[in-house]
Amino acid sequence: MLSTIKIVLVETTHPGNIGAVARAMKNMKMHNLWLVAPKIFPSADATSRASGADDVLAGATVCRTLQEAIADCQLVIGASARGRTISWPELTPRECAEKILINEPGNGRDGSQQSCGIHTIPGDKVAIVFGRENSGLKNHELDLCHFLLRIPCNSEYSSLNIAAAVQIVCYELFVTSGLAAQEEIFVGDKGEEPLATAAQMESFYTHLAEALTDIGFMHPAKSKSIMRRLRRIYNRIQLDTKELDILRGILRMSQGHKRNTDV
Amino acid sequence: MLSTIKIVLVETTHPGNIGAVARAMKNMKMHNLWLVAPKIFPSADATSRASGADDVLAGATVCRTLQEAIADCQLVIGASARGRTISWPELTPRECAEKILINEPGNGRDGSQQSCGIHTIPGDKVAIVFGRENSGLKNHELDLCHFLLRIPCNSEYSSLNIAAAVQIVCYELFVTSGLAAQEEIFVGDKGEEPLATAAQMESFYTHLAEALTDIGFMHPAKSKSIMRRLRRIYNRIQLDTKELDILRGILRMSQGHKRNTDV
Repeated sequence: MLSTIKIVLVETTHPGNIGAVARAMKNMKMHNLWLVAPKIFPSADATSRASGADDVLAGATVCRTLQEAIADCQLVIGASARGRTISWPELTPRECAEKILINEPGNGRDGSQQSCGIHTIPGDKVAIVFGRENSGLKNHELDLCHFLLRIPCNSEYSSLNIAAAVQIVCYELFVTSGLAAQEEIFVGDKGEEPLATAAQMESFYTHLAEALTDIGFMHPAKSKSIMRRLRRIYNRIQLDTKELDILRGILRMSQGHKRNTDV
Repeated sequence: MLSTIKIVLVETTHPGNIGAVARAMKNMKMHNLWLVAPKIFPSADATSRASGADDVLAGATVCRTLQEAIADCQLVIGASARGRTISWPELTPRECAEKILINEPGNGRDGSQQSCGIHTIPGDKVAIVFGRENSGLKNHELDLCHFLLRIPCNSEYSSLNIAAAVQIVCYELFVTSGLAAQEEIFVGDKGEEPLATAAQMESFYTHLAEALTDIGFMHPAKSKSIMRRLRRIYNRIQLDTKELDILRGILRMSQGHKRNTDV
C-alpha cells in the first residue's frame, strides 16, 4: 500500500540527512527513495545515519532532474515552508495521507463533489518531494506539484530538519494506512481511465504554450505568468488520459486553423 | 499551553541528538527541555544540530536523576519501543496529546469514570521522558511513569532516532493544541479572486461550444458528448473569475482567428 509512494529529495546537501531520511522511512515501512542530484552520494555519513536502513539507501534511485523522478506519478505533492505569490492548494501531513490512502466514495474522479477533488485510485503512483536544506523547492519545481504540503509548526521558527519533516509525513502515512487497512475503506473507481502522468502533463503544457502562441493569445516572451496560472488550473484537475486526448485534440485544431490562415 | 510540558532526555549519549531534539521542540513551539545526566553537554555538536534553537539548549535544565526532573509533574509519560513483562497502560502520540491537552468532562480526577482516567487540568505539569539511544528507559524508570508512549512503526525496524521520536510527539502536541490553526501563515486562498458563479460558468460553456464549432473541432449536431466531457473537466476545477477571464480570452482569440480566416 505504501509501496507506490516515492519520497523524492531534491539536491540534498548533507549526506547525513539522506541517511536520516532513509531511517525515518524504514521506521514507517516505506522504502521508495529517489534522490535528485544529491551533492554527495553514496557516503559514509549517509550510511552511518541510516543506522540499519542501508537497504533503503542501497535501493535509492539517483537521477538528474525532478522531472525524471516524477515522470510516472499521477499525484505529486511538494513540501513547502513558504507562502507563494500565486497560492497553490495546500495539505497538512494528515490531509496528505488521507488524500493518498483513503478513497472515499464521491471523492473519486467523477467531478461531482469537490472543488479540488484530486484523488488517487489503488495502483496510482505518488511522489512527495522535499527540497534543499536551506532553500527548499524552487518555484519552477513547485509548479510541477498538484499540492503543497505544509507541516504545521511555529511560524517564528518554521524550518524543520529535512529528516524530521520526512519522519512526520511518513508517520502520518503509516498511521493512516493502518486505519485504512482495518476498515477496508477502499472503494475502487474501476473502469476509469488511468490518470495522466507528470510526463504526459508536461507534453500537454508544451503543446498548450505552442498553441496559445500560434493563435496569438500570448507572446512567448511574456508567457511565464500566464503559463503558471494555466498550470495551476490544469494541475488542480488531475486529468485522465482520455480527457487529455480531448484537450490536445482541441489544441491541434486551433493550430490547424493557424496554419490554414497562414497559407 | 505547551509550556507546562517538559521533554526529558535520560542519559543521552550523542550531543548531536540533544541539539536535534531542541530544534524539533522549537519547531513545535516547545521550550522546556530537561537533560538527565547527559554524557556530553554543552557541546558544539549539540549547538550545530540545534540550528537556531540554541535558546532551547541554553534554557535546558541539567540534573542527575529522573526523579529530580519529574518531581513537580502531575503526569509522567515514558517513551518505550519494547513491550514490558508487566503490562503498562499505553498511549499513541495522538492519544498522549489528547490526554494532556483535552480536558473532557468526566475524565478529570474524580476517578469515577475510567480505570486509566488520569487527566490533567490546566496548569498541571507534564513530563514526556525519552531514554538512551541504544537501550531506552530501564524498568525502574518506566515504573515512575503513569503511561507508556508507543509510537506506531514498522515492527521489524522499530528503533526511531530520538530526535525523530521527539519530533513526532511534539508535532502531535502542536496539532492537538490548536496552535497549528493560529500559526498558519495563510489558510485557503485568501486574497484570491472570487469563484465563478454557475451563471458565469454557463456563459463560459456557451462560449466554449461556439469557439469549438468555429475552429472546426466539433459539429454542433454531434457535440453533446464532447461538451459533457468538457463540463466534467471544468466543473471539477472550480475556476475563479480571473481564471475564467483568461480562458475566455483564449476562446476569443481562437474565434478571432476564425473570423480573420473567413475574410
